Amino acid sequence: MEEKQLKLCMVGFGNAAAAFCQLMHEKMTVIEKDYGVKVLLTGIAGRSKGSLLNGQGIDLAALLQSVAGTGKLSGMPEELLDCSAEEVINRCNADVLVELSTLSIMDGQPAIRHIETAFARGLHVITANKGPIAWDFDRLNKLAERQNRIFLFETTVMDGAPVFNLISETLPGCKVLSFKGILNSTTNFILEEMEHGNSYQDAVKEAQRRGFAEADPSLDVDGWDAAAKTAAIANVVLKARLRPTDVDRTGISGIGIEEIKAAQERLQKFKLLCEGYIENNQVVGRVRPVLVAGNDIYSNIDATSSILTITTDLMGEISIIEKDPEIKQTAYGIYSDLLRLINLLRCR
Amino acid sequence: MEEKQLKLCMVGFGNAAAAFCQLMHEKMTVIEKDYGVKVLLTGIAGRSKGSLLNGQGIDLAALLQSVAGTGKLSGMPEELLDCSAEEVINRCNADVLVELSTLSIMDGQPAIRHIETAFARGLHVITANKGPIAWDFDRLNKLAERQNRIFLFETTVMDGAPVFNLISETLPGCKVLSFKGILNSTTNFILEEMEHGNSYQDAVKEAQRRGFAEADPSLDVDGWDAAAKTAAIANVVLKARLRPTDVDRTGISGIGIEEIKAAQERLQKFKLLCEGYIENNQVVGRVRPVLVAGNDIYSNIDATSSILTITTDLMGEISIIEKDPEIKQTAYGIYSDLLRLINLLRCR
Repeated sequence: MEEKQLKLCMVGFGNAAAAFCQLMHEKMTVIEKDYGVKVLLTGIAGRSKGSLLNGQGIDLAALLQSVAGTGKLSGMPEELLDCSAEEVINRCNADVLVELSTLSIMDGQPAIRHIETAFARGLHVITANKGPIAWDFDRLNKLAERQNRIFLFETTVMDGAPVFNLISETLPGCKVLSFKGILNSTTNFILEEMEHGNSYQDAVKEAQRRGFAEADPSLDVDGWDAAAKTAAIANVVLKARLRPTDVDRTGISGIGIEEIKAAQERLQKFKLLCEGYIENNQVVGRVRPVLVAGNDIYSNIDATSSILTITTDLMGEISIIEKDPEIKQTAYGIYSDLLRLINLLRCR
Repeated sequence: MEEKQLKLCMVGFGNAAAAFCQLMHEKMTVIEKDYGVKVLLTGIAGRSKGSLLNGQGIDLAALLQSVAGTGKLSGMPEELLDCSAEEVINRCNADVLVELSTLSIMDGQPAIRHIETAFARGLHVITANKGPIAWDFDRLNKLAERQNRIFLFETTVMDGAPVFNLISETLPGCKVLSFKGILNSTTNFILEEMEHGNSYQDAVKEAQRRGFAEADPSLDVDGWDAAAKTAAIANVVLKARLRPTDVDRTGISGIGIEEIKAAQERLQKFKLLCEGYIENNQVVGRVRPVLVAGNDIYSNIDATSSILTITTDLMGEISIIEKDPEIKQTAYGIYSDLLRLINLLRCR
């Protein structure tokens, strides 16, 4: 009997992609054994690193070694192409696009185009990029349905912690009425550092040193990342058509160290809260700093941990917490979507 | 095309069963529409209420009315039978046993026998009774596998909040290394009442008044309920063969109001912690009161809320919280297993 193959095409080759390739490499034999599928990576479209195509499957060990050594794909025997992501998607003969390109939080591009190209070509799509879900989920999801393709995006909010799958897989028949959460690690970390007496500037620097704040921290501190996540959850879970710009958004830059101290004296903390709910038949998304009491669970979601609480019609209120995620949890999110895709294909 | 039918046999007809029947009644048309299956209840084996058999399906509206009115099944048009649960399972020609008999925490019976009878007869099983999972999961699960039957038990821990499905459905490829949680509402409530200055006796009375502590509260306060849940999780998630009596168990009755006050002064709280972990290649289950610090998430799991934290190889640490559950959440747990069963059968 011929062994089943599943060919992946990867767009974007940053830290998360490398960590996912590392995990896939470690788990290759487990996937073959437990799921009866041989996974091959037949194309990579890097942004600055060049692109690779290999219909027989790129050697993951060599790939990881090359990237660890030179940071580039140029040490690889495969043809190094200077072509666009769309060309790679069209030429690599893959079954699945793994979209990991750099997030453009202000328009979701070029990831949206990559996903459109993939669906048009009949590929399933796994993405860890929240842009397409935050900007254009409804249309992309309908494209997927029309083409009978699978569209998975668990990693876009809270890495590999189940958010979308929590609702779709473990709460059947439940309707989500609203949600709230602490979903941006950088601001959560900065607020905590300020509680410890550090200045805003020092807190930002420390977050950058630890690698989870960008050189330009404004996307985090002005609430854009939180707004994108809020829009993404609202679009999937509340069937909204929000864009990040539709989210009522206030960042944390207006909070001074004096206010934080005053809150502490009342045993309160500032947290950047994301919310989605229905008001006058409209889905509303909101991001703003709120004061939470010391006996509130949200008060103890510290450092880079995150929490999402959903209120449902049949199951009341459920929360899920991810503790101190690192790049490993992002890689796992993509990997879990890959396993889920294999399971879904098996049931077709 | 003939409509697909799924026939249920219910053993036990207490509050959870009535709430489940109410929910099933409300959702019958939704199930037919969304899942293409007509669900029929063809048998009920009550303990004190008598038993009913009806191959055409018991009228749920009449059933609910009868139970609401007289608390008995005798108002029903069906003949009230005086036969054992095993006879009902054998005679009702059902596809699924819904096991909701009264928990016997010291041996898991008679639920274990009911489940054995069902598997032997080729029925799938859904149970909300933690006894069989805590006492005999490994053997029952193997029975199910041998008979190619589905065995679902999400409701046995934290009601309808995803615990077992969280791991099996949303964390594919992840290995659970250990778990901990606050899983007994009664003790959590009593400890909190004592923090508010109430005596142990008053706290127990209040828990009884609110309906979640038994007339004899010792199963809760001595840690037996927590030990059964610990064994159940360990058996399913860590592939252990623990029984509740194997769990290293300390209840809360040794904690005096003075100790609680002293803890409060140090901003600490007592919580009855359930744990499962591996030590010297053996799964260890443990239940004991621990002091948690005020900045620990566990410190703010109050009243009847519960939390489970799992530590995994690939996804680090994830927690799930259920807030203030009522009987509705138990009913949903059974309903969610029913929908899951329908989905699993569809994929066969």
